[in-house]
Amino acid sequence: MEISEKIELFRESFPFWEKLSEDDKKIFINSSYEMSFSKGVNVHDGNECTGVILVKKGSLRIYMLSEDGKEITLYRLFEGDLCMLSASCALTSITFDVFIDSEENSECLIVSGCVFEEVSTRLPEVKIFALETALSRFSDVMWVMQQILFMSMDKRLAIFLLDEVAKTGRDNIKLTHEQIAKYMGSAREVVTRMVKYFVSEGLISSSRSEGIKILDKKKLRELIL
Amino acid sequence: MEISEKIELFRESFPFWEKLSEDDKKIFINSSYEMSFSKGVNVHDGNECTGVILVKKGSLRIYMLSEDGKEITLYRLFEGDLCMLSASCALTSITFDVFIDSEENSECLIVSGCVFEEVSTRLPEVKIFALETALSRFSDVMWVMQQILFMSMDKRLAIFLLDEVAKTGRDNIKLTHEQIAKYMGSAREVVTRMVKYFVSEGLISSSRSEGIKILDKKKLRELIL
Repeated sequence: MEISEKIELFRESFPFWEKLSEDDKKIFINSSYEMSFSKGVNVHDGNECTGVILVKKGSLRIYMLSEDGKEITLYRLFEGDLCMLSASCALTSITFDVFIDSEENSECLIVSGCVFEEVSTRLPEVKIFALETALSRFSDVMWVMQQILFMSMDKRLAIFLLDEVAKTGRDNIKLTHEQIAKYMGSAREVVTRMVKYFVSEGLISSSRSEGIKILDKKKLRELIL
Repeated sequence: MEISEKIELFRESFPFWEKLSEDDKKIFINSSYEMSFSKGVNVHDGNECTGVILVKKGSLRIYMLSEDGKEITLYRLFEGDLCMLSASCALTSITFDVFIDSEENSECLIVSGCVFEEVSTRLPEVKIFALETALSRFSDVMWVMQQILFMSMDKRLAIFLLDEVAKTGRDNIKLTHEQIAKYMGSAREVVTRMVKYFVSEGLISSSRSEGIKILDKKKLRELIL
């Protein structure tokens, strides 16, 4: 990555960029490096400090992992998004572990967590930015928690399917029930049962070759209300 | 509450207190007021901005509430603790609602959220304190989420019972199964089933008059490992 490209990305991602001294700008530039991740690869693994991740291309999935391998998707990052939770040295008040996988071939710029921490100790606006970015994810996670704990399965699946087609712009979803269950923090059997019910109601069709196809978006939307 | 008492409480709760100008100290003193809550009373109700709550005496329970009235306890506040999530005007990145009830007769000092916001916009150390306090609760909530979503019910109940006796210093727990279920984010039936199992294993005894009594702390601890 060219230095000019790095600077452009920093300027877009960090609202404090223009207030930095030339020396501090250099610190960010020199302590950051580009990384490419193929689809499905692990990007950040729990308690290590990977650093602040800026997504240049692709998408990342942030999730919790239980000891026996159960996953709950917390949120996703897309082009232009930024991950602070992967920079544990810069966020001492965060004591839990998250995991990050790439969902597509992704290109990221990574800023060393320790360097970010060093700068943020000197500059309150950098510290405030780090804390606010992390805190805004608190709201995302609470939303997921409400979904999982409070909402009935039909609503949750309807939301998931509509989100997916909105994201991809296509009418079919090429994910296995196992994958959908993982993303929703549910069990495969529960998803399979609900998919069958949706098929019987004429909301979707489901086949091995085509995956899930939305047939009645309007009715699906009504389920959510 | 005497002004000197307020100042003492602020000094203990706010690490930035001594750095404030005399004028700013006065702002905090004049915009804060004492409130007493009887046991079981609602202290903060979702989307309103109650303000920053300093617990002088008693204890508060912070929880999520679903549309149909299901509750999940997120964490508790005790003497000397402070709640930022109830000051929504001072935390724009928090978009979810929490509810707060008093669990004992409690005395609190409440600082207006808007005043706190005004001061924190001028003084980065106040802003950083507010964000860090809120963010540290993110970790608590993630812990609860992991408990609920990943952990088996026997472990969860064992942890809950041991926590309770550690907190109260007594060997018996005078809570109904309904109450325990509420605190754990579970259903009464599930708690009743597990209590029966613990009784049959000789870990606890359970009676209407005495509540739950811990008989074998060692075995209960082994369940958690």
